[in-house]
Amino acid sequence: MNESSEPFILQGQAMDINYCCRCAARMEHRIPGGDDQPRPVCPVCGFIHYQNPKMVVGCIPEWGEQILLCRRNIEPRSGKWTLPAGYLENGETVQQGALRETEEETGTSVNLIEPFVMYNIVFVNQIYLLFRASLKDTRFHPTPESSEVELFTEKDIPWGLLAFPVIEQTLSRYFRDRTKETFSFRIDEIKKGN
Amino acid sequence: MNESSEPFILQGQAMDINYCCRCAARMEHRIPGGDDQPRPVCPVCGFIHYQNPKMVVGCIPEWGEQILLCRRNIEPRSGKWTLPAGYLENGETVQQGALRETEEETGTSVNLIEPFVMYNIVFVNQIYLLFRASLKDTRFHPTPESSEVELFTEKDIPWGLLAFPVIEQTLSRYFRDRTKETFSFRIDEIKKGN
Repeated sequence: MNESSEPFILQGQAMDINYCCRCAARMEHRIPGGDDQPRPVCPVCGFIHYQNPKMVVGCIPEWGEQILLCRRNIEPRSGKWTLPAGYLENGETVQQGALRETEEETGTSVNLIEPFVMYNIVFVNQIYLLFRASLKDTRFHPTPESSEVELFTEKDIPWGLLAFPVIEQTLSRYFRDRTKETFSFRIDEIKKGN
Repeated sequence: MNESSEPFILQGQAMDINYCCRCAARMEHRIPGGDDQPRPVCPVCGFIHYQNPKMVVGCIPEWGEQILLCRRNIEPRSGKWTLPAGYLENGETVQQGALRETEEETGTSVNLIEPFVMYNIVFVNQIYLLFRASLKDTRFHPTPESSEVELFTEKDIPWGLLAFPVIEQTLSRYFRDRTKETFSFRIDEIKKGN
């Protein structure tokens, strides 16, 4: 879906909430009872419009020594390479979300192996969760979201053409862990300007 | 905050989006270009109102052989025992959220040890992430959100009085892992009616 293609600019930022999405009244910004910070509150129907971080889920698809990258066909960073990942949707598990995004962006399916890394990306209010995964076959192909889908060995990774810092960090750690033959789940942070 | 106290009924459910929260126009429900499922879309300003799962973050505070539980002072499940946890806020990491919720609900602070478990709770569109943590001291106390805050050994856990299935499952796993002297991060699911 389109939303998944723009995790870094549109959806992550908290937006201005001017009107109540339930009754259309002009929202007030005040601290609701029992709370400790200002929220958009509807003076007519009482609805409180909370805004919370979104999860982005995806994977590192392995095929032997190679891993699968997608070349973005949509802005932002169109033409840059990325791992399959996108916003978790209501009604799905994090695993289902990672599988769906992989299918949407690479045209093929994977088996998830285990969670590999979680990133706090506070400045866009996103939490990334990426799994290690194994490709079931090599019938991947370009999709509306990816102009190219291609396997890369470590030495062929297009480091200068990766779409986002989170992708670069994930791949660096992945290859470091693989060299040590030990993968362990961890939580890290991507800071602005990284 | 209040929101954190009601993860299972109010905030988790996808709600009806009737009006555009940016311009107050009546929303249409249609599939946006490049998407594959219907969303609330504003026919006037073009705003798409996505709804995504929320993260709930918290911890299992350890003090020697004991762990710290809070007795809920707010609905739902007022009077039932729970682990400190609540909605992740914009602008914080998952670790900061877990620490903040612990402080709010127990009046004391912890050191996070490591992520312990993640739960998909699809029927309320929530993803739980719970850490193991160690209490820094025993200066915990009741708070507006907790009528009692108390240490329990395994045999004293009030199993019949726990607030939510996710708390029961987390504690069961925790004591099982502790007996085996091996904690390992995993992702599981809480199903409706569990």
